Amino acid sequence: MVLNYKLILKVDAAIGVLLAAAMIPSLIVSLLYNEIDVAISFAHCIVPMLFLGAFVVYKTKPTSSTLRMRDGFLIVASCWILASIFGAFPFLLSNSIPSFIDAFFETASGFSTTGASILTDIEALPKGILFWRSFTHWLGGMGILVFAIALLPALGIGGQRIIRAETPGPTLDKLSPKISDSARILYSMYLGMTVLEVILLCIGGVNLYDALIHTFGTVGTGGLSSYNNSIAHFDSIYVDIVITIFMILAGVNFNLYYLLLQRKIKDFFSDYELRGYFIIIAIATVLIAWNLWSTKTYDTIGESLRYSVFQAASITTTTGYSTTNFDLWPTFSKMVLFLLMFVGGCSSSTGGGVKVIRVLILLKLIRRGMYRKLHPRAVVPVKIQGKSIPSATVSGITSFAVLYVCLLLFGSLIISLENFDMLTSISSVAACLGNIGPGFELVGPSANYSAFSDFSKMFLSFYMLIGRLELFTIMLLFAKLFWNPDR
Amino acid sequence: MVLNYKLILKVDAAIGVLLAAAMIPSLIVSLLYNEIDVAISFAHCIVPMLFLGAFVVYKTKPTSSTLRMRDGFLIVASCWILASIFGAFPFLLSNSIPSFIDAFFETASGFSTTGASILTDIEALPKGILFWRSFTHWLGGMGILVFAIALLPALGIGGQRIIRAETPGPTLDKLSPKISDSARILYSMYLGMTVLEVILLCIGGVNLYDALIHTFGTVGTGGLSSYNNSIAHFDSIYVDIVITIFMILAGVNFNLYYLLLQRKIKDFFSDYELRGYFIIIAIATVLIAWNLWSTKTYDTIGESLRYSVFQAASITTTTGYSTTNFDLWPTFSKMVLFLLMFVGGCSSSTGGGVKVIRVLILLKLIRRGMYRKLHPRAVVPVKIQGKSIPSATVSGITSFAVLYVCLLLFGSLIISLENFDMLTSISSVAACLGNIGPGFELVGPSANYSAFSDFSKMFLSFYMLIGRLELFTIMLLFAKLFWNPDR
Repeated sequence: MVLNYKLILKVDAAIGVLLAAAMIPSLIVSLLYNEIDVAISFAHCIVPMLFLGAFVVYKTKPTSSTLRMRDGFLIVASCWILASIFGAFPFLLSNSIPSFIDAFFETASGFSTTGASILTDIEALPKGILFWRSFTHWLGGMGILVFAIALLPALGIGGQRIIRAETPGPTLDKLSPKISDSARILYSMYLGMTVLEVILLCIGGVNLYDALIHTFGTVGTGGLSSYNNSIAHFDSIYVDIVITIFMILAGVNFNLYYLLLQRKIKDFFSDYELRGYFIIIAIATVLIAWNLWSTKTYDTIGESLRYSVFQAASITTTTGYSTTNFDLWPTFSKMVLFLLMFVGGCSSSTGGGVKVIRVLILLKLIRRGMYRKLHPRAVVPVKIQGKSIPSATVSGITSFAVLYVCLLLFGSLIISLENFDMLTSISSVAACLGNIGPGFELVGPSANYSAFSDFSKMFLSFYMLIGRLELFTIMLLFAKLFWNPDR
Repeated sequence: MVLNYKLILKVDAAIGVLLAAAMIPSLIVSLLYNEIDVAISFAHCIVPMLFLGAFVVYKTKPTSSTLRMRDGFLIVASCWILASIFGAFPFLLSNSIPSFIDAFFETASGFSTTGASILTDIEALPKGILFWRSFTHWLGGMGILVFAIALLPALGIGGQRIIRAETPGPTLDKLSPKISDSARILYSMYLGMTVLEVILLCIGGVNLYDALIHTFGTVGTGGLSSYNNSIAHFDSIYVDIVITIFMILAGVNFNLYYLLLQRKIKDFFSDYELRGYFIIIAIATVLIAWNLWSTKTYDTIGESLRYSVFQAASITTTTGYSTTNFDLWPTFSKMVLFLLMFVGGCSSSTGGGVKVIRVLILLKLIRRGMYRKLHPRAVVPVKIQGKSIPSATVSGITSFAVLYVCLLLFGSLIISLENFDMLTSISSVAACLGNIGPGFELVGPSANYSAFSDFSKMFLSFYMLIGRLELFTIMLLFAKLFWNPDR
């Protein structure tokens, strides 16, 4: 079975066209702020990408419109890698980030909604460039491909296969029999959430530009800010609350919002994963607040709660915004955040990480293991809300977990060659693989990734993409069995 | 199904008698070194334990001699906990370790062959006490229960059920149809290995006392030394080599030695786990040696190799001896050791940790996961040496791995309440759960566990026992389903 390279090329070219179109708002922002040089840089990206992309789309005639599983994986992986390459050009051409590797890191961080940055002084960058930087979060958040799914049918391609590789989390319920319809519904909800947050931030006195930047970072669970101090810059309880709520909302399974639209509110709140997600954030918040208050890190219980809920929500949803330098917190609070780095958002949300449902199912395996020690011959299915989980799903989740841990440990080993401290090495890899952004020590919330070598930056950029695409999509490309499927 | 409490009591009492008997050599050592006070302390432990134990064994008349699974788990768990309590009395009575919690920590560390210590000046302790401290390693190494299996048939109890809870690792091949025979064979091999190492160390100029102490620590993969500097005290390449070899031998599946006895040498070396074990130690040694040499930590490649192979073998086998303060090594070398902390020895060895065979099977799950992404409907068994692993075994291993990670993360959270640095918190828990001993930073090879609070010491003591007894044996006691099996 040969890969359908022509069709893959056609889709990639179409993504190029979309990417060029997606740069137009940033060009407009540049013009509004009188950044003519920056606007010209954007134009230098947009025009060739638009025409070359359109030309390739027009000229490429696939002999077959069949997309197999392997084609789907290659499309998703190639699109994200290409988007991170082409999306880096505005940084380069405007000379905002002169090194290609740095620009690639920043763009991969944007599209993968990680939020890690190599910039030492964010505020020195032009407004148009910072807008593009955050806009990649917004594009990446819902997935540039879920975005593209509305386009694919126009190319005469069914998108079913792609969404299987793309969707965060183990399952995607079909919202609607036609995949393009469900993409449109998801997209509308995402847009609605964006508009709502922008309005709420503006009401709180944030200017429109900042409101847009931070909304992109929130609903995409990204975490890039236009300020060196991240959300601490605003120093406003109102802004903290709005962003906390929207981070949490962005980490919820978007399929569930469809239940809300259908007014099935009871079904919404009885979702097993959603409950686990809320409980995890609540417990983490209480634990951290108690620790911060009892160690007198903050004077009042109210202040402790304010900082604990924001940071807990930020790390759990893998956003990565911060309202304080949590790297200076007592060890217990830091450890809670460290554990949250391995949870992540709900499946089918914009959040990264392992995903809540996987964590919950893995925890259930412990009880099954105990039961089997006492009853070795019993066959015990893993159940959630009374329904047995198919053993193939369970084994898929265990494979995912093992691969996640292996990637984490292997990555930490590679990054440890930098000879930074152990915690920097481990947490930088965890923060990139989990699409979180900040870690501890040298990559703490008040620091950045500028100290890493070019090799490490490339390595971590790929880790962001690997994490964002549910590990296997990219890791498969390194497997012999992907290229020799008949073996 | 009620637990057979009377029989459990009888076995526990028998273990008490054995423990009293096991203190006699230490008493003799005390007398030889003219430590009369210490000898009296031992006598104060031995006499009551011997008589009380024998009385309980004699008086307890179980109504049934049937041992169910649950009885077996309770026997194993209670024996190890009781041994760690009663084994602590010589430290207390001799006033060598005045605090009970400290003494319990030291004894649990001994019996679980962990090798973590709360002592700040080991060399200040009496010879008899240090002998007992290391002798607990030797007893624990092979398992005080495998020891006891020769005794159980005399009590009219079949030991089959117990060995299932006791054996390190997922499987124990039956060496012999009669369990008491196989216990005797294992015991003889263990004794032979001990004698051989003592002779080799003495040939190298080590005095008999030190040779015994360090042999107990080696063949039991324990790691307690009579010197503050551990094996670095001897500063002898010969001693390093002997101990390295015996650490590695102690980490080998003891069933395989039976193959050697039968002259099936080819079968021995073709064992999948053994090969993985050797390869892991070899790769780790080369990586560390390369790193140490290229960073000029040591002057010559030979010196780098000398220190890398010892430390790699010590951590992989979960012994914990050191010939240098590896906490001062460059980060990459430390990271290799950190990863080795999660490997451990072979199944059915005296080594702790996750065990090599489990790690290898977990790695195979990644490939299966990849295959299933491409062929979602395929049923793919996990194979080792051409044989399919039963899915129940695979699911047992994944449960184990999930529980291991959860215990590690939960433990790190609890220990982080001490407000030491993150790496101390994580590595102390990893070192105790994996029965290794030293970790990094405050629990590095040149440090000890004296800085921890009483609560943390108790917590870590239990973690040592949990790790030693393959997690489930003790964790089951905290599970409702253990006490309400009919639920």
